[in-house]
Amino acid sequence: MNFLEEKILKDGIVKSNNVLKVDSFLNHQIDIKLLGQIAKEFARRFEGCPITKVLTIEASGIAIACAVAYELGVDVVFARKTQSVNLDGDLYVAEVESFTHQQVNKVIVSRRFLNSEDHVLIVDDFLANGCALQGLISIVESAEATVEGLGIVIEKGFQEGGYRIRNLGYKLESLAIVDRMDAATGEIVFRQDPLSGPVF
Amino acid sequence: MNFLEEKILKDGIVKSNNVLKVDSFLNHQIDIKLLGQIAKEFARRFEGCPITKVLTIEASGIAIACAVAYELGVDVVFARKTQSVNLDGDLYVAEVESFTHQQVNKVIVSRRFLNSEDHVLIVDDFLANGCALQGLISIVESAEATVEGLGIVIEKGFQEGGYRIRNLGYKLESLAIVDRMDAATGEIVFRQDPLSGPVF
Repeated sequence: MNFLEEKILKDGIVKSNNVLKVDSFLNHQIDIKLLGQIAKEFARRFEGCPITKVLTIEASGIAIACAVAYELGVDVVFARKTQSVNLDGDLYVAEVESFTHQQVNKVIVSRRFLNSEDHVLIVDDFLANGCALQGLISIVESAEATVEGLGIVIEKGFQEGGYRIRNLGYKLESLAIVDRMDAATGEIVFRQDPLSGPVF
Repeated sequence: MNFLEEKILKDGIVKSNNVLKVDSFLNHQIDIKLLGQIAKEFARRFEGCPITKVLTIEASGIAIACAVAYELGVDVVFARKTQSVNLDGDLYVAEVESFTHQQVNKVIVSRRFLNSEDHVLIVDDFLANGCALQGLISIVESAEATVEGLGIVIEKGFQEGGYRIRNLGYKLESLAIVDRMDAATGEIVFRQDPLSGPVF
């Protein structure tokens, strides 16, 4: 069991059979020491990849992206979900469905910040159905940049996102993969071999 | 002229007389080296304050909050603008008007993450009319915690937020205060003495 799995068992709360609350350390309050460990572990897992940029999506991904980027010595781009008055000009846009918020969001990145020379590490806090990640992948591909890999803090192994993205041939590293949760007992079962999960 | 003012002159874009675009290094793409300098400068300016937590608001504030918190060795709480399915239970709520998005947002923090023992540093990327900051201040006060200070990357000195917050007696540190911008010429004038600005 790694440091993150231990933290999830200690402080995560199983709200339902598919909602895991980690707001005390990851996506509302952020445990800065844990964030440092997460960043170092991603840096280790993607060592040797010629990463030039870390890409994520607002809001929860930003802390993780910055910590990883700091370890790698590269800059961050965070995709926007809405078009603010400060985001104009040529844009990459992908449409993604948010499981948490039950709505369709646009994912928007300015064309000025991704180009064909970029080697991109995509990171996010959660992976469930994979729509957000697939939106980010499609943006990197629109830029003719290279997806070097994807780093996820917590993958819901019982949803199809991880299977689909691995199946497309991407290097996907999830620090914890939850195979099963039980809201009645609070039990959380982690997957040990990333490739051993269900087929979708 | 400090490192941030130099960066703003080099890479900031004056979109109109009150909109300064810094998306190439602060709130869309993030310059990680600059972020480290910002964090160290805030740590220096709030040295000796017994800070236990850094509070910000999603999304652009998160990177700054994490970098500062890393320097200070404390955790971050980022306020949410909408109530997700993962945010429930007892909440602190404040209503704030967003200048950028021209709408009223709720600012929400779980009561579990702020209490009367906390000494809070509030940080954000921009300060304009001060509504977002005042929402965060009111949340800290609802928690009966102490506002140790407020750290802002770029203050729009021609709007009233900075004046009002200083006038309330808070220690407000802005790394760059823009007194005047001209979209026609691209000129940006920085304030040298924080207290020398207009009275509102």
